[in-house]
Parts: sequence; structure tokens; C-alpha cells
Amino acid sequence: MTMNDEKTYSVADALACVLKHATLRGVEEIALDQALWRTLAEDVRANRDQPPYDVSAMDGFAVRSADLTVGGAALTIVEDIKAGDRPKATLGAGQCARIMTGAALPTGADAVIRVEDTRPLTDTLVEITVPVKPGNDIRRRGDNMRCGDVVLTAGTAITPGVMGLLATVKRARVSVHARPRVAILSSGDELEALDAPLNPHGIPESNSHALTGQVQALGIDPVRLGIAPDKPEVLARYIRQGLDYDVLLVSGGSSVGMHDHVRPTLEALGVVMHFWRVEMKPGFPLAFGTHGSTLVFGLPGNPVSSMVSFEQFVSPTLRRMLGHRSLFRRTLTARLTHSIKHRPGRVEFVRVTLVAGNDGRWNAASTGSQSSGDLTSMARLDGLAIVPADCAGLAAGDAVQIQLLDGGMFQETSGFLADGTA
Amino acid sequence: MTMNDEKTYSVADALACVLKHATLRGVEEIALDQALWRTLAEDVRANRDQPPYDVSAMDGFAVRSADLTVGGAALTIVEDIKAGDRPKATLGAGQCARIMTGAALPTGADAVIRVEDTRPLTDTLVEITVPVKPGNDIRRRGDNMRCGDVVLTAGTAITPGVMGLLATVKRARVSVHARPRVAILSSGDELEALDAPLNPHGIPESNSHALTGQVQALGIDPVRLGIAPDKPEVLARYIRQGLDYDVLLVSGGSSVGMHDHVRPTLEALGVVMHFWRVEMKPGFPLAFGTHGSTLVFGLPGNPVSSMVSFEQFVSPTLRRMLGHRSLFRRTLTARLTHSIKHRPGRVEFVRVTLVAGNDGRWNAASTGSQSSGDLTSMARLDGLAIVPADCAGLAAGDAVQIQLLDGGMFQETSGFLADGTA
Repeated sequence: MTMNDEKTYSVADALACVLKHATLRGVEEIALDQALWRTLAEDVRANRDQPPYDVSAMDGFAVRSADLTVGGAALTIVEDIKAGDRPKATLGAGQCARIMTGAALPTGADAVIRVEDTRPLTDTLVEITVPVKPGNDIRRRGDNMRCGDVVLTAGTAITPGVMGLLATVKRARVSVHARPRVAILSSGDELEALDAPLNPHGIPESNSHALTGQVQALGIDPVRLGIAPDKPEVLARYIRQGLDYDVLLVSGGSSVGMHDHVRPTLEALGVVMHFWRVEMKPGFPLAFGTHGSTLVFGLPGNPVSSMVSFEQFVSPTLRRMLGHRSLFRRTLTARLTHSIKHRPGRVEFVRVTLVAGNDGRWNAASTGSQSSGDLTSMARLDGLAIVPADCAGLAAGDAVQIQLLDGGMFQETSGFLADGTA
Repeated sequence: MTMNDEKTYSVADALACVLKHATLRGVEEIALDQALWRTLAEDVRANRDQPPYDVSAMDGFAVRSADLTVGGAALTIVEDIKAGDRPKATLGAGQCARIMTGAALPTGADAVIRVEDTRPLTDTLVEITVPVKPGNDIRRRGDNMRCGDVVLTAGTAITPGVMGLLATVKRARVSVHARPRVAILSSGDELEALDAPLNPHGIPESNSHALTGQVQALGIDPVRLGIAPDKPEVLARYIRQGLDYDVLLVSGGSSVGMHDHVRPTLEALGVVMHFWRVEMKPGFPLAFGTHGSTLVFGLPGNPVSSMVSFEQFVSPTLRRMLGHRSLFRRTLTARLTHSIKHRPGRVEFVRVTLVAGNDGRWNAASTGSQSSGDLTSMARLDGLAIVPADCAGLAAGDAVQIQLLDGGMFQETSGFLADGTA
């Protein structure tokens, strides 16, 4: 149980440390319709060829290409074939079948002519206006997948598209990684609970609610343990309860509270502390420890610092514990609309909104006050502009990486339609 | 009940048409912890000043600036003030108070010195090593918000940051826009249900499951009505059931099924059809109608076309019905790794994955086959590259707008840490 009072990690080292402890928590079988955002704990195989036979790729006519080597033939329609039909006819010379996209090719046919390249003559006679090569507009049996092929590998995130593919191979139930169980504990005598009467001089407890939203956004419903007072034996009781979970988030009141009260209590309960501070802004006082397989994060009491720290460390950790391969928020490049002062030393995360430029690129503008106590900025940001630790300041027009947060996943314009209304 | 057989809309016109019918569906009051991704149906006001009094912006010492006009004074520590404490002392000449971030300033103090700019001499004596101006590192009462200020306006999307802000102003319950009720109906005799026995030549019904995921991803739990057969009177019974919802998604089997069976049934039930086709690829056969306040989308039977059509039209519609201002998926600019052939006419949506370039910008590569029957591409894409209608083809290296879909919201690398592991 070593602990270094001065243990300050770089962002990269802190991230490597927390991810090393982010392990999977078992497997469960669930219904497909409950599986969105979970990750597969098994390889999934095709249970038949797709398509199950040669099919038409177009609405049109199934033909014998030998009838059309020079183009311009009139063919007799001997059958109408829709998707799911079993064709009855065998095409002879001068014959064709009307066929829909996805429908099975009749025996004798070796090409498809799209309807746009034909002209109806009578109900049973069609003029083909183009020549055709064998195989034209045919999708071959097994083109998409062959029976027995692995179509989805363990670890795949279950998006809506994956749900469709799982239904295609008839997986009404799937084996997925279990969700880690997450507990959230606030600490500090000064905090006023959401359901407590209003004290005009009180400090409202908001961190556990913002953290609840952050955890829910990752697909996990956390348990809130309440507000622990600074009294050591009561705090210990709360923390002991939290250590029964896979992940415990302790939202410190003031940083003095974290060091004076939370820290000795965690140590006394056998939590091995790995670091206490991270070279970032906001979020400097950020602690991480482990107790058996339980991960304990000591998050700063400052509302903005708490949320930013969560995004940088807890979110990738929970994503990995959920079985995801993509742990990190999407980043994009934007141009700053203003300069940013920065003293080399810590990575800085600047709250920004994104505004589309006339050239289709993004401009990033600060949300205004970067005070770490001002939650209003977290309520309206699109993302965080990342100022690297060694940067000596950025000028207006400089390119900067933006980490897109939840508020930035949708935008007000389509981004590609010219009329501006959409 | 006018209907034009040939009614083909541009993407922009089709979008304008569907959004015109996307209306709000009432208001409900819910618990804060259930409010993620909903939108506020009320303005929310601050219920006290934040901060409630002048507070320190730093861990350090509250001082009288008059004592430090030249720097380098030794001051007597008369009190320790933590966040939430009510200070007792009034600072006299030569006195200071140890103070934590967010703690109330004692009477007499007019500046804060951060702890880094001080040196402890004894337990009650501290040397200040810098001069200071009045107001230094003080956050004034009401700096973040003043009692009565509107801090969140109606229509705000409830992100985790908004949840924190709502807790700050003690809103345990909030008034939000009701979710539209969404029904999904599949149609076509050829479709094999997920729970039906495997027929090696059958066509598995996957669209309703992919659509379920797409609707769930927007925060709505849809109802699946099942697979309607092509028999008109039975189909009518299914559709009548669907018209009781706010939004009905009919996933056509083959397009012939849509036109031969679904279309006359919708008309017979009094659904006013606004368009039948949209100039896009994939997704050309896309229908939209209304029945009273119910919106009816006729989605293509092709699995990829169905999903892409949903993203372009149904998703913005549901977002608006949910009360959101940001209706559209985030777009970013990427460079194509290969050329794309394109015949001017329809907007084309090309399934791509994004790979980070060495310069921190994104490269976009096709997922491979762009066959609209191949769902495996939808299961692994990050987004859709948008090829404008009037484009005559794109070359490798060209910049292209990427619409980020659900699979593209997270990435495998942090995007800003140099070590590559994170």
C-alpha cells in the first residue's frame, strides 16, 4: 500500500494507469431489442448464404444474354418474379421474366436488364434497348455472406446496423459483456442535497447529478449513494458500501475535504492509491485507486473539473469495461475564432461551441468564462478544445483538436444542403 | 387526397416537407434523473445567487490588499475557511485567513493570494511573496448566475451538463416535451420473422430490428407491430393500428409490394401522400404521408436504403418532435482515400470508415461493397460520405463531408495524446 503524497501524473500516464485496471465483468445473454450499445461477447456466424440464391440487383427483366448480343430484341415475358418467389419457368430462346430487386433468377437467365433500359410493347412483350453481358446486375448466392462465415466478431459494439445484421442471421438473443456496476458518492458537510430545503447560503450538490447523466450516456444506470458527511466513521460506512460496486466515483467536496477526510478513509479501508493529481486544467486534483477489482475515482469537487475529469478518465474506463474497442470521444479539427493564452505545463481543456464556417469547416469559440465553478458553460458546450501541455498559446485562426461531447453530437444544419433551412 | 404517381422530391425539398409536419406532442413532468436527452418545455430560473457570496477562486489566503502594496509581507493567520463555512473573523491590518476554493471571503478581505505564491513560516504566520491588487482571485456573488435569471431556456437539450445545472438550481423534477410514440410495421409475404423457423431460402426480416435500434438511439422505445402479409384487408388492419401512433414507419418488402399493396391501402385509409420518391442513393423509393397528426413513412425494403433513409428524414423528424433544435447528425470534413464515381442526378451517401491521418485530420475510406442489400457495411461504418447531386465524381484526396452515424461517435485513439496507446 504505497502512496506518494506528490504523485502527479501526466494525462497520458494517468490514462494508461486507469485503463490497465479496466477489466471486463462477465457475460450475459440478452434479447436483441435490449442490446443497443452493448458489445458482443461471442463471434456471430451466418446461418445461411445471403443471398440464398442468385438474385436480381435491380427491378427489371431476367434475360438470356445470348438473345441480346447486339441489343434491341423484343422478348416474351413468361413469368413475374417477386422477392421470395420460387421461379417456375425455365427461360427459352426469346423469353424473359419480369423480376424485382432481390428476387431469385429463373433457370436459364444469366443477366438482368434494368427497367429503365426497356420499353413495354404489350402485356407480355418487352423491347430491350441495350446489349448485355452475362452476369449483368446479378447478385450471386453468398455474395453478402456464406453460411458459417463469422459476420460479427466478439467485441463489436451493437449499433442499430449491428442489430439489423443480428436479425439477418436470426439471433433473437445475444451474448454480451456485462455492464460494470457504478456507484456515485458525494462527500462534504457543506453540500445541500437536491431534496433538502433551500438555504440561500448553501452549496447545492450538483456533481452526483451531472455524473449520473454522464454514466447514463454510456448506457449504464448508476446508483447514487447520497452525500457522506465529513465525520470519518460515517464516511467510511458510505465508502465501504461503494466498494461493493465495480466502479466507485467519489465526488470530493473541496479538495481539502478530499485530502483530509476521503484520503485517510480510503487508505484505512485498504484502497491502493495510484495517483492523486493529473497535469491538466481543469481537473488537477484527480485521484485513482483500486480495492480488489473495484476501481475508485476521487473526482474534484468543482463541477466543471468533475465533468471534464470524468470525460478524460472515467468514460474511457467504463467504455473498456463495457467491452468497447473505441474508448475515446470523436475529435475533429476546428479553427479558433480567438486566441487562447496558455502557460506550458498542463494540458488544458477549453469549453467551446462549434459554428460552421462558409467553407464547410468548423470554427471553435470559447463558451465564455472558463471558471471551473461555472456549470452553465458545460450546459451549452459542443466540445472541448485541447491545448497541449507544451503549447505556449494559440492565436485566432489556429487549428485545434475538438473533443466532441454529448452536446455536440447533433448540429443545427445538415452540413450539406445548400438552402440553409436544413 | 391528391397524389402524383411521379412525385419525386430532391433531398432538400423532401426534408422541408417532412419537417413541416414534425410537431410537438405535449408536455410532461419527470424526475431529473430520468431526463437525459429530453428537452426542456419551460424556462428554468436561478433560485439564488451563485456564488451566494464573494468566494475565493483559489486555494490560498484571503488578505487585505493594502497590506501587500509592495509584496513580501508576513501575515498572521486568524482563521481557516472551508467551502460552506461562515467566516467569523474580521481581518485587521497584518491579518489573513487560510481559504479554500469556493469558500466565503471574510469581512475585511479584498483579495486572494494563491498558495503557490506564499511560504509558511509558522502554523499561524505566512509569508506572501507577491504584491496584489484588490479583487484578485475573487469570484463575486452572482458571477455565475443571479437569483431569478433564466439559466436554461425552453427547448434546451438535457445533456449531463444540463442535469448538473438543473440540480444546481434544485430542480428535482422538470417539465419536458413528450416523446412521440413510434410504431414500426414490416410488410411482405416473403419475409421470415426473427422467431420463425429457419427456411434456407427465406428472406430474414431485419429492417424492423435495425429501425428499432435507430429509434432507440434517439431515446424513444418504439413498438413493433409485426410483419403484415400482402393480403389487402389484413394489411389494412395492421396499418390502422399503426395510425394510432404519432409516427408510423412502414418498411416495405420489395418496392413492388410498396406500390401494389401498401400504397392503395394507405390511400384507402385516408393517408395523404406527399411524395413517393427522393433523388438520393441509396433510398430512392421513399414515401411520406400524413393522417391527421400521424406521420407515415414508407421506407425502402432494402436494409441499407431503409437505414440511410431513416437517418436523412426520420431522425431529424423525431428530433424535432422531441423538441430538439439540433436536428442533424454532426458532420466533419475528411479526405477521401480513393476516387468515387458519380453520375450527376442524385445525392449519394457512401458508407465509410474514418482513419486518422498523421496530420491529425481524418481520412475516409469506403466500407467496400456499396450494395444496398449488404447490411455488413452498416454494421461497421463510422459515417456517410456525402456526394452532392451535381457532383461528377470525386478523386482520391478530395475533401468530403462525413455525416457521423452512431458507430462513429467514439474512436480508438484519444486524438491528442502522442503515445498512440491512448
